[in-house]
Amino acid sequence: MSATDEGYLVALEEMRQSLDEGGIPVGGCVVSKDGKIMGRGRNMRMQNGSPVLHGETSAFDNARQYPSSAFEGCTVYTTLSPCPMCAGAMIWFKTGKVVIGENTNMSGREELLKSHGIEVVILNEPKALGVMTKFIETEPEKWKGV
Amino acid sequence: MSATDEGYLVALEEMRQSLDEGGIPVGGCVVSKDGKIMGRGRNMRMQNGSPVLHGETSAFDNARQYPSSAFEGCTVYTTLSPCPMCAGAMIWFKTGKVVIGENTNMSGREELLKSHGIEVVILNEPKALGVMTKFIETEPEKWKGV
Repeated sequence: MSATDEGYLVALEEMRQSLDEGGIPVGGCVVSKDGKIMGRGRNMRMQNGSPVLHGETSAFDNARQYPSSAFEGCTVYTTLSPCPMCAGAMIWFKTGKVVIGENTNMSGREELLKSHGIEVVILNEPKALGVMTKFIETEPEKWKGV
Repeated sequence: MSATDEGYLVALEEMRQSLDEGGIPVGGCVVSKDGKIMGRGRNMRMQNGSPVLHGETSAFDNARQYPSSAFEGCTVYTTLSPCPMCAGAMIWFKTGKVVIGENTNMSGREELLKSHGIEVVILNEPKALGVMTKFIETEPEKWKGV
């Protein structure tokens, strides 16, 4: 698992698209056990108001054509360490691995994920870290509203 | 907190509406700290395919006109004990209390909620229990797909 994985590049694209839309720059991507991109998404709070479509839940939501059993063993790529809801979604859908761009600006669910047998990889990847750090500095009100 | 609270009656209505639509009969309702109904919702997996809109997340999603800070101290009513994602949503939005219709057909997140300072009330209410028990017996494939 690395920052050049297709799933991570998709998550970065989603992060940038959200930023371009005036949204909260967090992107996610769900990749099946056999390597297929199932869903991609970004935080939608600013775009359509949804409080539950974060980067990761949005990626699952955009994989709605699949039965839930198809998520088993998937890898979730996310630019930012998950909130409790997104961590819970990963647990519910029997995710095998979570690849996190950065957990400097948010963290705390890594142990919960591991306790459910989910492998957690922290990339400490500079693009995700740079965008989110700048966003929190320049748009604190949007960030508080997540 | 009791089975005659307006928020619980709304959750039951949502549960029945989902059942009438051929969906998974779980309903939810978010009530603000000062007693206002903020959002109501039901599991939408069968209706529109969304894997992330469960009864409780759907109720939060339908409260998208509010800033996240308005959820602080809210009460979430749900006909069925929450999955990890919905429990995580409650934690993320700083829910004060969760009122659960039944936790016979699903349980396991009650202690997690309590560990985050959330009061948990189990009603063991016969309507929620009866509908869900019958649904799982008669529609096992739909239930597995949640």
